[in-house]
Amino acid sequence: MPAAIHYQDVVAAAARIAPFCHRTQPVTSHLLDGIAGLRLVFKPENLQRTGSFKCRGATSAVAVLAAAGVRAVATHSAGNHGAALAFAARAHGLECHVVVPSTAPRVKQDAIEGYGARLVLCEPTLAARETTCAAVMDQTGAVLVPPYDHPDIMAGQGTIGLEMLEDTPDLDALVIPVGGGGLCAGVCIAARHLSPRIRLFGAEPLLADDARRSLAAGEIIPSTYPDTVADGLRTSVGELPFAILRTHLEDILTATEAEILAAMALIYTRLKLVVEPSGAVGLAAVLANQDRLGGLRVGIVLSGGNVDPSRLGEFFLSEPASRGRTL
Amino acid sequence: MPAAIHYQDVVAAAARIAPFCHRTQPVTSHLLDGIAGLRLVFKPENLQRTGSFKCRGATSAVAVLAAAGVRAVATHSAGNHGAALAFAARAHGLECHVVVPSTAPRVKQDAIEGYGARLVLCEPTLAARETTCAAVMDQTGAVLVPPYDHPDIMAGQGTIGLEMLEDTPDLDALVIPVGGGGLCAGVCIAARHLSPRIRLFGAEPLLADDARRSLAAGEIIPSTYPDTVADGLRTSVGELPFAILRTHLEDILTATEAEILAAMALIYTRLKLVVEPSGAVGLAAVLANQDRLGGLRVGIVLSGGNVDPSRLGEFFLSEPASRGRTL
Repeated sequence: MPAAIHYQDVVAAAARIAPFCHRTQPVTSHLLDGIAGLRLVFKPENLQRTGSFKCRGATSAVAVLAAAGVRAVATHSAGNHGAALAFAARAHGLECHVVVPSTAPRVKQDAIEGYGARLVLCEPTLAARETTCAAVMDQTGAVLVPPYDHPDIMAGQGTIGLEMLEDTPDLDALVIPVGGGGLCAGVCIAARHLSPRIRLFGAEPLLADDARRSLAAGEIIPSTYPDTVADGLRTSVGELPFAILRTHLEDILTATEAEILAAMALIYTRLKLVVEPSGAVGLAAVLANQDRLGGLRVGIVLSGGNVDPSRLGEFFLSEPASRGRTL
Repeated sequence: MPAAIHYQDVVAAAARIAPFCHRTQPVTSHLLDGIAGLRLVFKPENLQRTGSFKCRGATSAVAVLAAAGVRAVATHSAGNHGAALAFAARAHGLECHVVVPSTAPRVKQDAIEGYGARLVLCEPTLAARETTCAAVMDQTGAVLVPPYDHPDIMAGQGTIGLEMLEDTPDLDALVIPVGGGGLCAGVCIAARHLSPRIRLFGAEPLLADDARRSLAAGEIIPSTYPDTVADGLRTSVGELPFAILRTHLEDILTATEAEILAAMALIYTRLKLVVEPSGAVGLAAVLANQDRLGGLRVGIVLSGGNVDPSRLGEFFLSEPASRGRTL
């Protein structure tokens, strides 16, 4: 399958999103470099508008639809993509309907409504989400904007790779979280063009390593919706992203649940940044694979920061200080 | 009492600390502006080296001592000043001894040792801290660097005011947390010079409003070491800072414990920044006094971000989402 997007698509997306999304600034830490034995450059997409990188893809896609005369959009999303689509739709004057499982964190439901979208709650099953979303589209004429398996979405997320290589041209490697794969695929396309010899790695929770297993098998092996704390990475890799990941990724690095929470604690205590568990998977995978990255200057995407503060207690319950020291 | 420092002292301190401390960048949020009904500009000193503004004062003071031939410094500090002094001493090649109550959070003890200082644990009483510190100085010849009641410390903290007014010259008001008062005094001196008509407010927990009561009484009324969650602001205002606060502060705004934790939750969920409870007191005081600040562009110092992740659960236990909505 030919790649669904090319470098010029990412450049075009960058122009579309520039009026609406932040250009997040690289973050570094001598302390974390010391812990990792590497030179790390973080891309803090938790500081992106709507609190995650999803703002870029949604804005990229909605801008194209708005220019084509579409008046309403819809999606089913447990969180960050829903908030991002709501934000992008409002920015372009479109109606937005977001189908959300009734079990989604209140902080994410609030964010979606806060951006002016209509929230439609459904049972927490994929079947219920798809049925409800189809009914909403039928009633309202809204166009579906999927979370990752779409060229304009991938091109939007790819702007992160563009910015990382523009800001730090001498990066030797990138480590990018893989859920549906839209972020990782877009970043691969941009980074490979700007730095042909850069080493590109995905990052997954060991409990949700469907993309790693899919790459090994040469075909998509669907995720069984695993119970990782990194809830943004539970989804299966999509077809369009998968074709790009196969071409560009050297490997997918994994991290255990304990390693993800330890990395999250390091980001809180060392970078003073709020990330959600999925946002810490890149650093966790790097720290769990230091031997493979020795001496490199590594770019890591902190993908998002939307976490319900009342859940932080459970993430940091057991001796985070000693956890930090063992790394 | 004449002011212990003047604008030129702050300018001189800025030159001393520039090689060692970050110039933190202003942070804004449309979402928080909407909640506050104000235009807010945050100074994120949680992103300062050592995780708090104390880095500035300690570096300012140590640079002066190092130039005078001093070889070792000491202090007693439950946390941020201790870490800052350790950092500053190492940066200038000085020995550093920090007396810490044995009850201080592990994350802060780790930080002090991580910066290469000798940690001396003592009983958690002021008497024990002073006695132990005196013994350490006697044994080692170290010079005491106090946390706030010192001109070079105040001048160092004042660089925050310098930067805030340079970066955002049209600020109408500043709201600065008051513990010992060194930060607030330094910022007052710098801000008043650069913007003579700026309105200057302190911020205190209602449970620890000793500086407010002292200003009302015209003399220092010592704090009774109140049990506020904002542990960095439990101390009494110092003599040198007090003389400056009397001249420049329009008032000290207060916030309840619930308001401090609600503001902390907003900073986590909206700014995606990790702050310690004391670091949230400025925003809490602003939100509790919106009527007095209506329409103004208000600068708020986020003073620090050193919080033990394992304690976050207790800070955000009770329905942070609905807390946020009621503000």
